[in-house]
Amino acid sequence: MGKDKVKIGIIGAGRIGKIHADNLMRNPHAKIVGISDLFAGPELEAWASIRGIPVVTTDSSQLIEMPDVDAVLICSSTDTHVPLIEQAARAGKHIFCEKPVSMNLSQTQAAVTAVQEAGVKLQIGFNRRFDHNFKRVRAHVQEGTIGDPHIIKITSRDPSPPPAEYIRVSGGIFMDMMIHDFDMARYLSGSEVEEVYAQGNVLIQPVFAEHGDVDTAIVTMSFENGAIGVIDNSRQAVYGYDQRVEVFGSLGSATAGNDHPNTAEISTAAGLMRDKPLHFFLERYNEAYVQETALFIEAILNDTPVTVDGHDAVQAERIALAARMSMEQGRPVKLREVPGVTMESTAP
Amino acid sequence: MGKDKVKIGIIGAGRIGKIHADNLMRNPHAKIVGISDLFAGPELEAWASIRGIPVVTTDSSQLIEMPDVDAVLICSSTDTHVPLIEQAARAGKHIFCEKPVSMNLSQTQAAVTAVQEAGVKLQIGFNRRFDHNFKRVRAHVQEGTIGDPHIIKITSRDPSPPPAEYIRVSGGIFMDMMIHDFDMARYLSGSEVEEVYAQGNVLIQPVFAEHGDVDTAIVTMSFENGAIGVIDNSRQAVYGYDQRVEVFGSLGSATAGNDHPNTAEISTAAGLMRDKPLHFFLERYNEAYVQETALFIEAILNDTPVTVDGHDAVQAERIALAARMSMEQGRPVKLREVPGVTMESTAP
Amino acid sequence: MGKDKVKIGIIGAGRIGKIHADNLMRNPHAKIVGISDLFAGPELEAWASIRGIPVVTTDSSQLIEMPDVDAVLICSSTDTHVPLIEQAARAGKHIFCEKPVSMNLSQTQAAVTAVQEAGVKLQIGFNRRFDHNFKRVRAHVQEGTIGDPHIIKITSRDPSPPPAEYIRVSGGIFMDMMIHDFDMARYLSGSEVEEVYAQGNVLIQPVFAEHGDVDTAIVTMSFENGAIGVIDNSRQAVYGYDQRVEVFGSLGSATAGNDHPNTAEISTAAGLMRDKPLHFFLERYNEAYVQETALFIEAILNDTPVTVDGHDAVQAERIALAARMSMEQGRPVKLREVPGVTMESTAP
Amino acid sequence: MGKDKVKIGIIGAGRIGKIHADNLMRNPHAKIVGISDLFAGPELEAWASIRGIPVVTTDSSQLIEMPDVDAVLICSSTDTHVPLIEQAARAGKHIFCEKPVSMNLSQTQAAVTAVQEAGVKLQIGFNRRFDHNFKRVRAHVQEGTIGDPHIIKITSRDPSPPPAEYIRVSGGIFMDMMIHDFDMARYLSGSEVEEVYAQGNVLIQPVFAEHGDVDTAIVTMSFENGAIGVIDNSRQAVYGYDQRVEVFGSLGSATAGNDHPNTAEISTAAGLMRDKPLHFFLERYNEAYVQETALFIEAILNDTPVTVDGHDAVQAERIALAARMSMEQGRPVKLREVPGVTMESTAP
Repeated sequence: MGKDKVKIGIIGAGRIGKIHADNLMRNPHAKIVGISDLFAGPELEAWASIRGIPVVTTDSSQLIEMPDVDAVLICSSTDTHVPLIEQAARAGKHIFCEKPVSMNLSQTQAAVTAVQEAGVKLQIGFNRRFDHNFKRVRAHVQEGTIGDPHIIKITSRDPSPPPAEYIRVSGGIFMDMMIHDFDMARYLSGSEVEEVYAQGNVLIQPVFAEHGDVDTAIVTMSFENGAIGVIDNSRQAVYGYDQRVEVFGSLGSATAGNDHPNTAEISTAAGLMRDKPLHFFLERYNEAYVQETALFIEAILNDTPVTVDGHDAVQAERIALAARMSMEQGRPVKLREVPGVTMESTAP
Repeated sequence: MGKDKVKIGIIGAGRIGKIHADNLMRNPHAKIVGISDLFAGPELEAWASIRGIPVVTTDSSQLIEMPDVDAVLICSSTDTHVPLIEQAARAGKHIFCEKPVSMNLSQTQAAVTAVQEAGVKLQIGFNRRFDHNFKRVRAHVQEGTIGDPHIIKITSRDPSPPPAEYIRVSGGIFMDMMIHDFDMARYLSGSEVEEVYAQGNVLIQPVFAEHGDVDTAIVTMSFENGAIGVIDNSRQAVYGYDQRVEVFGSLGSATAGNDHPNTAEISTAAGLMRDKPLHFFLERYNEAYVQETALFIEAILNDTPVTVDGHDAVQAERIALAARMSMEQGRPVKLREVPGVTMESTAP
Repeated sequence: MGKDKVKIGIIGAGRIGKIHADNLMRNPHAKIVGISDLFAGPELEAWASIRGIPVVTTDSSQLIEMPDVDAVLICSSTDTHVPLIEQAARAGKHIFCEKPVSMNLSQTQAAVTAVQEAGVKLQIGFNRRFDHNFKRVRAHVQEGTIGDPHIIKITSRDPSPPPAEYIRVSGGIFMDMMIHDFDMARYLSGSEVEEVYAQGNVLIQPVFAEHGDVDTAIVTMSFENGAIGVIDNSRQAVYGYDQRVEVFGSLGSATAGNDHPNTAEISTAAGLMRDKPLHFFLERYNEAYVQETALFIEAILNDTPVTVDGHDAVQAERIALAARMSMEQGRPVKLREVPGVTMESTAP
Repeated sequence: MGKDKVKIGIIGAGRIGKIHADNLMRNPHAKIVGISDLFAGPELEAWASIRGIPVVTTDSSQLIEMPDVDAVLICSSTDTHVPLIEQAARAGKHIFCEKPVSMNLSQTQAAVTAVQEAGVKLQIGFNRRFDHNFKRVRAHVQEGTIGDPHIIKITSRDPSPPPAEYIRVSGGIFMDMMIHDFDMARYLSGSEVEEVYAQGNVLIQPVFAEHGDVDTAIVTMSFENGAIGVIDNSRQAVYGYDQRVEVFGSLGSATAGNDHPNTAEISTAAGLMRDKPLHFFLERYNEAYVQETALFIEAILNDTPVTVDGHDAVQAERIALAARMSMEQGRPVKLREVPGVTMESTAP
């Protein structure tokens, strides 16, 4: 870019928007020039003032159009992602967008096309790709330590269900929660998913049923490279955030377990005990959040491809939609059955 | 029985027959009075002589009909199980039979009926129920430590594939290998399986494809109690026998990992290392084999129900057949679709 | 203090001085107003300029006397600690000083007295007290989970020896390296050390012998509360930084193991492997460094006692000197034999 | 020996005598021809009858002198060991003797000399050398995986103290309990101990003090090869039998942890839990007991050296006596200071 700092506008000042802001504050190559939020007010202004962020606005368009802005981070609600991406692309701004891009594959594809036509960068917030554990497993797979992948297993369980109002608009467990795991399945296997079969049940809270959703689900997958895989999700693991993966192959297996707050172990007459895993995504993926925006900034400065692009968004959404169809229709569903776009098969 | 020793005849002097014999030699309540094998000869006679087993014969009928025999262990090839069970039942002998009873559900059911009519005991060789790790997980489930089961996960991988001649007559991965895991799923969940969906692929050796079989498979299950589950099998885990389970529930999760030959860990400049898991079933399930026949003897002496009965054989075979149908037809299959018998739902 | 920011001068711009500076940059309650170093020059000026630190000087006195400075961090070489502490105390500045305060107990005591007379705060850089693992073990001890402590065990091994020029002035393994463990022994046991017996040998590099030092050492301790303990040190653990503790007591045991860069485990035909522990103190104690200065700032703002004070410095040095006497004289040495000061027994 | 079975007489029908008997019953190369015990009576006769052991006597001499006896296992109380060894040696019988041979080094040495003169085999019951974990660590040391040993660490804690009447005659913690660890130190290091320093305290039960004994002890050692080491013992680890070792060397470290009854782990809202280690020596060293007598039989049949010989008994006792002197005199003690015998330095 011919400069050494990327000027950033942040759209959406919710929890994740603020985390990205704080992480970028420490990045010598980023400068946050503004933040927008529908509910911006004195509180956000105080927050921004302490951090030396000059512009606070309720109008995301204003931020996008600021000549001083090189890139935007879209951290607002999912329904705003597509129009914001399109506007930012037209304005020639690089884009970091939280997942999912949308609930509708045609719209997601349209947004990705707009980005490609504008020649700007689009990175998707699949933060788990930057986790120290999963990166190490992927490295082993790529280095051939475990040979050809045969079985991919992903466990992903939240410590407690989200509030009812969130469940209502979440898009369902596949699009809201398991979408991270669909991306992880592609990332770990180095292959595209061909077919899925989804099973789910409401075992935790009836509210999920009220919205046609489930709180417990297992999805099996077949991959283009012949591997098969399985993901299990639960909205409530009372022992904390459970995030584990395994790639089993012709020469061995690579697993990654949970992170714990400490290594202390207590032995008493009752048995051996240690503390539960790190509670939730903010603790577990803290370092991954720092890295994903740092690499976004780096990709802009060096004009190199982003690590997770629009195609990755499209593919993960397509798998989520196929899983939903599978559960509703009680049958395995091929990805090519999902209406909306032509699939280009590009391994992650 | 009004006595303190059960007199045993062993049918089939292959590897597993000999293991059961050696284990029973140490059991003060059992006495082996004879062993039969189609290929009995000087070698088997020498083997029996060292152990003080008086009768060695090629004729299993002779053994079954010996007045001195209280019970038989059927360790011969699968195709002989049903006629041998029926003959032994008619002769009023208690029966321990290796899994599966047969490849054909009607025949298995007929054998079970013959046993019930004769009023003798029939125990099936699902040895893993007697493993120290899985028993402990089951105990936690039954004591309510983890609440209501939501997700059952079973990993079961062999260190290396069987020879081609075995594959040909094995009955396929579901009936030969995963049948143990189907029984484990019922054992751990305390519930019956309602529906399965099976995926498989040939990733290790083309010989499996030649016999319409697969070497790598994932089966998902839904249970009557609402839980869902998944089993993954591979015919070749180069790092050794991989036998792990997890039951995840409303109050927590119980897992069991592999057994290792020692706890030694080496730290060098290359990283941390420990030895592979115990190599195969003879090492891993050694103690379980001792226990299963000991409990069979105990059930006979005390006239109490056996731990794994004919119903358990029928159910596991039914799941295996449903899994095969599912893979062949590419769709989920309900257990009630499997032809042959009426299902009685009795939780294990 | 009637304000919300502590203004800091940093004395010594070596590795640890710069780390403290970077950690304090992120602390909203601290402001670095200057940094001094004997070798300050254009490089340090550039480093300071990026961080917005206005004053860079070769003269530590200038920094100490700046009216704008509330507190100093003494990160210069050990021989400068005592005069700098005394000067800063006279100037009414709060002091954070790296360990050890000096190699001479009378001088250390004199510095502590100067601090007490001046009524300023003095915190010693025993960073390991702020480690997540050791804090958790200590919490269990204090909560009574393991009952009365009986045995304290500390393993502390560096990944590789320091350069020869460092060894020459280090003060020896007890004063330079094991002093951290002596402090940890007091911290974990909640008791004072009464007597030590030290054994050591040169097994890694002859250069240690040239300076009358050892590279491998074991020290046993008896505590006032009756517990006994042992520390082992090595200057070279080729598998990385090895930092583990155990407190064994009447009701059980609490251990803390190493931190690893990830949880990935690889199973292959060669065995099971995982990556080595975090390489060295900067990685392992990163979080502890952030916390120790944050708590120093907090203690100043709230006018509360510091977490590790001058008495802790004196006691750890006294144990180190006793250990040296023990090794030189080949006999157990009581702490009261160490010349220089009267011991006040105050459990940490 | 020109035969394929060793005929065994067992002296002492306490717990360990009976365990050895049961293990030998399963050994095809051993035949138990008699058992003696001071308190032999109907109960022991019944026990022997079930096992087909023809001779039961209160007179150990009778057993030793039986022409039919090839070897004796001395499992009686420590004060009888030396005269029994001498008598058996004179009678030309091979000897397996429980540890320690005696509390008096001259007597032990005299017994060893009698054995050497008679040309019979003497194996000492240091069963831990046959433990799967410690064997693996030793193998790594011998294969050079961890380079030259620098630090040897042994933790050995019993689940609960012995009864008061046992404590009175036990010979003290060093001769009764830590003697196993002294042997282990020689076994793991491949070197002889030169000097020890012992610390101990009574922290569990006052009864130990009444007999001039301690219940908690730490002993440091220096070895002839330059390594240093430490052993810690406690008579009461409420979480079970704690038996761990570490050998740290120039190329890495080898550790062995405890054995557990199963691998089940439970995760709940309270944390992660697993069952305590195997309770005590009968559980933990079950397999080691089987192996040690099997190898004794093998050494007799093949006329090869035994695995643990008289020299090993002498050396371990000498270290125990030195440790006692060290604790009593409050100073490090060299092994050559222990009166009674000339030391021959032969690495184990």
